[in-house]
Amino acid sequence: MNNLADRAGHDLALIREKGPLVHNITNYVVMDFTANVLLSMGAAPVMAHAEEEVEEMVELAGSLVLNIGTLSNNWIKSMHRAGRRAAELGKPVILDPVGSGATRLRTEAACSLIERVGVSVIRGNASEVLSLERGGSTTRGVDSVHGVDDAAEAASRLAARLGVTLAITGPVDLVTNGERTVRIQNGHPLMGRITGTGCAATAVSAAFLAVDTDTVSAVSSALGFMGLAGERAGVDATAPGSFRTAFIDALYTLDPGDLSGGFRFKEG
Amino acid sequence: MNNLADRAGHDLALIREKGPLVHNITNYVVMDFTANVLLSMGAAPVMAHAEEEVEEMVELAGSLVLNIGTLSNNWIKSMHRAGRRAAELGKPVILDPVGSGATRLRTEAACSLIERVGVSVIRGNASEVLSLERGGSTTRGVDSVHGVDDAAEAASRLAARLGVTLAITGPVDLVTNGERTVRIQNGHPLMGRITGTGCAATAVSAAFLAVDTDTVSAVSSALGFMGLAGERAGVDATAPGSFRTAFIDALYTLDPGDLSGGFRFKEG
Amino acid sequence: MNNLADRAGHDLALIREKGPLVHNITNYVVMDFTANVLLSMGAAPVMAHAEEEVEEMVELAGSLVLNIGTLSNNWIKSMHRAGRRAAELGKPVILDPVGSGATRLRTEAACSLIERVGVSVIRGNASEVLSLERGGSTTRGVDSVHGVDDAAEAASRLAARLGVTLAITGPVDLVTNGERTVRIQNGHPLMGRITGTGCAATAVSAAFLAVDTDTVSAVSSALGFMGLAGERAGVDATAPGSFRTAFIDALYTLDPGDLSGGFRFKEG
Repeated sequence: MNNLADRAGHDLALIREKGPLVHNITNYVVMDFTANVLLSMGAAPVMAHAEEEVEEMVELAGSLVLNIGTLSNNWIKSMHRAGRRAAELGKPVILDPVGSGATRLRTEAACSLIERVGVSVIRGNASEVLSLERGGSTTRGVDSVHGVDDAAEAASRLAARLGVTLAITGPVDLVTNGERTVRIQNGHPLMGRITGTGCAATAVSAAFLAVDTDTVSAVSSALGFMGLAGERAGVDATAPGSFRTAFIDALYTLDPGDLSGGFRFKEG
Repeated sequence: MNNLADRAGHDLALIREKGPLVHNITNYVVMDFTANVLLSMGAAPVMAHAEEEVEEMVELAGSLVLNIGTLSNNWIKSMHRAGRRAAELGKPVILDPVGSGATRLRTEAACSLIERVGVSVIRGNASEVLSLERGGSTTRGVDSVHGVDDAAEAASRLAARLGVTLAITGPVDLVTNGERTVRIQNGHPLMGRITGTGCAATAVSAAFLAVDTDTVSAVSSALGFMGLAGERAGVDATAPGSFRTAFIDALYTLDPGDLSGGFRFKEG
Repeated sequence: MNNLADRAGHDLALIREKGPLVHNITNYVVMDFTANVLLSMGAAPVMAHAEEEVEEMVELAGSLVLNIGTLSNNWIKSMHRAGRRAAELGKPVILDPVGSGATRLRTEAACSLIERVGVSVIRGNASEVLSLERGGSTTRGVDSVHGVDDAAEAASRLAARLGVTLAITGPVDLVTNGERTVRIQNGHPLMGRITGTGCAATAVSAAFLAVDTDTVSAVSSALGFMGLAGERAGVDATAPGSFRTAFIDALYTLDPGDLSGGFRFKEG
């Protein structure tokens, strides 16, 4: 399959068939939303963060999410243990560096996970992702202050240097491994007015990574799927509360053909 | 009152009248959903987990939920303290062994709570509940891999041995204390596509246990009520986001007569 | 601007224009709801609780929420550090003493934050706020057992003694700094049937405090805005699940003119 759109639909069909287990070590704010997103789309979530059990739990999973949104030191230790075990087992690890650049704790936690754990994908907004390169404090809380266009070149270089696939989400999403770059145009402005859509994009990417070993394709498909769900939700919903409900519904009702047909992207 | 259905309606009326306080030491993922479920049905939730305060808090409550879904060692200690104090005071304690069987930490935490705390009810899926007997690792994350029928006999023996009431939920729910067994047929498939319905079933059971000392009746009534709310939600909602909203609504709009009239169960 | 209603609309317009960042150290139950409330109304939430980062994070914020709803000792330490740093920087700190009076841990944590941190506003129900004076154990979980009328005089004296603005919410809300007292009559009974409306009122107050230095006006405006959103949600929604969705929608759709026009209050 050499067409990204066909591959996206194929991946979604595989998720619906296999129901991959996604292990999340994630922040308190988005646990409920993330679990509901994964269940609605056809994957299976598990949240477990205790040092004593994360290695066992990740053995049962198809992929691992490390999200530093409400960090503390114990959780960082667990992320390292879970991440190293996943990497040993060849299971994809995706890092969401929430708020990296805003505080030293977050920037250092993200950088240390990248150095010592075999992270295969990093998904964040432009400020968060670029803070991993420059180490500067340019993030305002968890908001993005860089546009995706400023970020594209820097991201491509950074991806090559780190040996990972980077995904920068915003009005247009960017996915790059340093050689290959995909821009995804699906989405809806209300996605920025509900909490956890960024974190959910990371978890949805983890579900796609569990069934597709091509990380650029898997993550691009995931972001196209998220964006399409936002578009479908935005057809009827005009405010954040009802949009959130409709968004979860859309993750359930969108089928592989919808995804292949509606995925809007540019490669290169 | 010797009819389970009449008793269920009577219990719901008591909950609406008294608004029993349910103390939850539960997992991060479902705290919001659990609190909303309890409030909507007419009970009052409180979440408190600090070792320093759980004994005082449980003194104010009508029942106690111990849910090991996102466990860590500090929380296990608090569960023991709260559970022992509740048992001393004669207040019902219900354990939700989320993910027991999946990791040693969870299986051991669940077994040690059962041994040392006066747990009166345990609610889980078949894998979780049966892991308490065999100690084997048969759980895939928090999903069930056993059917309720395979589990019925084993559950009855286990309930008798542990001296508790066991509730195994699934497409058909099973409640047994070793002598008396009830199967509940209410429910809707979309309940499995939103996070926290199992944990909510435990919390709703705790609300019924706070007003009904017959544990088999109380838990059966609770599961009938949950299932009926799912059925009512499923009349209009066809996807998980809107189903969740409609489910919370149904917990509020169902009245004692609806419960007595719609409760579908078999005894023995 | 000497009219409270005009000022409320003006404040809301400022929030929509500036999108102030509100730093929340809050309880697990309401993190998702609080974040969605703030995003929907036009503010920006950040949740961060680690001792190592709270001082840096609060430097980026316009105001700070300290909410003791699911307390543990580490979190109390972080609240002190964040609160002292905010006060040094002249940023408003609002305390939500959830469950104060119910357990010693909570009452002491609340009193110690008031003594050692420059808290400018405290928002709770009558029992919680009055427990700060009497130190007695009169709270039943997190429910209120005092009416707002019993509480008005005591609150006015307590506000003067503590040098803070107190907000007591209930069917009628009361805001007082000991000299000036405002009663707000907006609201809807279903607000008490969803979890986190009290905590959300604190967070919404924090957003108003970030753009208005007059604490009595800012908090009164916030409570009027919350109450109006409840009223708008209650026009169509008749049960808690759909009410919650409609409430979040209303925070987005209400505009400054709606707030100025619909705000029902009495001063003095």
